[in-house]
Amino acid sequence: MKSDIDRLMHEANLDALLVIGHAGHNPNMTYFTGLIHLTRGYLLKNRDQQPVLFHHSMERDEAARTGMDTKNLDEYDLNKLLNAAHGDLIQANATLLGHIFDEFGVRGRVGVYGKSEIGPNYASLRAVDDALPELELVGEASNTSVLTRARLTKDEDEVERIRKIGEITTAVVADVVGFLTSHQLKDGVLVNRQGDPLTVGEVKRRINLWLAMRGAENPDGALFAIGRDAGVPHSAGADEDIILVGKPIVFDIFPCEAGGGYFFDFTRTWCLAYAPDEIQRVYDDVLEVYQTVYPTMKPNMPCREYQIMTCELFQEKGHPTVLHDPNTKNGYVHGLGHGVGLAVQEGPSFRHVEGNKDLLLPGSVITYEPGLYYPEQEIGVRIEDTVWVRPDGLLEVLAEYPKDLVLKMSEV
Amino acid sequence: MKSDIDRLMHEANLDALLVIGHAGHNPNMTYFTGLIHLTRGYLLKNRDQQPVLFHHSMERDEAARTGMDTKNLDEYDLNKLLNAAHGDLIQANATLLGHIFDEFGVRGRVGVYGKSEIGPNYASLRAVDDALPELELVGEASNTSVLTRARLTKDEDEVERIRKIGEITTAVVADVVGFLTSHQLKDGVLVNRQGDPLTVGEVKRRINLWLAMRGAENPDGALFAIGRDAGVPHSAGADEDIILVGKPIVFDIFPCEAGGGYFFDFTRTWCLAYAPDEIQRVYDDVLEVYQTVYPTMKPNMPCREYQIMTCELFQEKGHPTVLHDPNTKNGYVHGLGHGVGLAVQEGPSFRHVEGNKDLLLPGSVITYEPGLYYPEQEIGVRIEDTVWVRPDGLLEVLAEYPKDLVLKMSEV
Repeated sequence: MKSDIDRLMHEANLDALLVIGHAGHNPNMTYFTGLIHLTRGYLLKNRDQQPVLFHHSMERDEAARTGMDTKNLDEYDLNKLLNAAHGDLIQANATLLGHIFDEFGVRGRVGVYGKSEIGPNYASLRAVDDALPELELVGEASNTSVLTRARLTKDEDEVERIRKIGEITTAVVADVVGFLTSHQLKDGVLVNRQGDPLTVGEVKRRINLWLAMRGAENPDGALFAIGRDAGVPHSAGADEDIILVGKPIVFDIFPCEAGGGYFFDFTRTWCLAYAPDEIQRVYDDVLEVYQTVYPTMKPNMPCREYQIMTCELFQEKGHPTVLHDPNTKNGYVHGLGHGVGLAVQEGPSFRHVEGNKDLLLPGSVITYEPGLYYPEQEIGVRIEDTVWVRPDGLLEVLAEYPKDLVLKMSEV
Repeated sequence: MKSDIDRLMHEANLDALLVIGHAGHNPNMTYFTGLIHLTRGYLLKNRDQQPVLFHHSMERDEAARTGMDTKNLDEYDLNKLLNAAHGDLIQANATLLGHIFDEFGVRGRVGVYGKSEIGPNYASLRAVDDALPELELVGEASNTSVLTRARLTKDEDEVERIRKIGEITTAVVADVVGFLTSHQLKDGVLVNRQGDPLTVGEVKRRINLWLAMRGAENPDGALFAIGRDAGVPHSAGADEDIILVGKPIVFDIFPCEAGGGYFFDFTRTWCLAYAPDEIQRVYDDVLEVYQTVYPTMKPNMPCREYQIMTCELFQEKGHPTVLHDPNTKNGYVHGLGHGVGLAVQEGPSFRHVEGNKDLLLPGSVITYEPGLYYPEQEIGVRIEDTVWVRPDGLLEVLAEYPKDLVLKMSEV
């Protein structure tokens, strides 16, 4: 949580944090600023001190909304810095950062964060690091950084925001079910009233619309993968694909608050009208593993243990897994879950590798998503919920939704 | 244009390009991949050779959709690299890049690009740079990089995509006009049928909805700034604000293709029901400058000349400008325009500083957006269109829309 940042900075031996970039769609900046319209900025925080938000003049009112200490970058006379650097933006930026570090007494090890163009930042930060011997700019690994670790656990306000996106998500999932099942069938294909086949692209357009109606945004699109595509976990599904009964559809939807805030992550696998036996069998295996592992999950346990348990259960049922072959494309081919927050995929990690020390901390919000994939047989099944590890140690699914494989078509 | 990349690499003395990150909402990656669901990847291009797209196994079908040469990152055995690095992701990533550079014969100066978390990339790239003396990793400035310069000019397909987003944008602007003017008035405030004041938040929710209906996305939100907020160019407008007649509303809308593709950028300033004289005067000045400078714009001329001309025209009318005082918050406080493409703000720049050598190249798509701001008087006016500098040298507004200041309320 945010309240852990100073302690985590002590543990990581960091004297200051510098966060770069946009306020939205930039998890480590949004974490501090909330959703304001700040297109470029810096956030500087010395350890055990309040952060300061640096903004451009045109965005001064937006910066002020945060309630943070703010500083207008115009005060550094950016045009003068640029002229002094003979128009070299990299050098001008490096000089600006040097002035800021000097003015705010920044010394020692400074962690750098933020989602922004890598190239110019790489060059400017290198120039600052080389020019200021009393400073060391530190790029922490994404799985262990101070802000990753702070964001591992959510406070109540964050959980409520994720829960609200979850309610929107499942409401849209219900909209999709209603939309699909109200179509007519022609030769096993869903068709509209004009008799034209419904396409995956049309379903996705509706999903974006229904999310927008309810106040959410869908920056990465949904996955709506049918048939062979369902067998490849991150296949988005092709817009031109038609929708057939009796084929598995993996529908993975992960919207966020409008403006680039908290995410939700949710998957269901459906067969329209009926499920062939071989799909039902795979589905039953996934559901059984879902129902077996979930009740065993306890706070403060290593996440990797649950991944190993999931692999072993699937192996007992005869499915290949990543435990046996890390590169397998058949069977259970991914991790059991991941954290969800300002990024759709953040800590903790459920990778089974020994180096993964992540624990299932109280306050975590994670996905729980066992699945099985056989692309050559056109089979893919995933069931994914977003789960809160409550402070009292109990796990809570943040937005409940039925887990039926078969969606009955409405009487027509 | 893309076809310029090899020539630009020669000019910049770059032997290879490395682009990092997500395929959507990441201009330098989307430029090569188009809109596919690739959450993490690398694109490597040796000069005078075709690019290669590196992807994770789960995204192999998405990567294949690009038609590019692809390579599955699993072939490098990432788990083994991570174990060898004792779980240090930074080091494992650096080793991976070293293997890739070695395999693909990358030598010399390698430009790095992509919007991604700065910290871990900074550390990994530094480690690679230090470990491989035959390589130099180069972070080019955002205003002069090879990809910035390639993207300065658009091919016909890109222009058509921007035009289409422009048509969606102006259709939604018309929706907003219809929505606002169909409201009733109570004491000079817009109210709904229940007599409750319409809020800026409600207008913005509708904007997101109407954009989604038409297939666009609104990742940065629209600015809908009224009264004093209108006087600060990047004020987004507060959700709880009510909407009054006779106050200037600066409505700036800049959506993109769903999934994070090409943008459009558009602003109108409106007064509902009537415009007070002091706002009408400021509006007339902006419109006159708009109509004076635009016909003078010629291909291959320095962009900064038009910014200087605009400043001088405004100064003649008694308005302060950034030419006279770069930090002024009153009068004409920003640039005349900027490029629009896969980023809502890209090259060319219209800054008046001498170091700005950007030309108005045929093939550019730019915004053209004179404005005047007097925040203490609650006045702000901006008129912005997106303009294509056609290969034949003529300028074309990509989505025409009326420039009326006053929106008449419908008879009720």
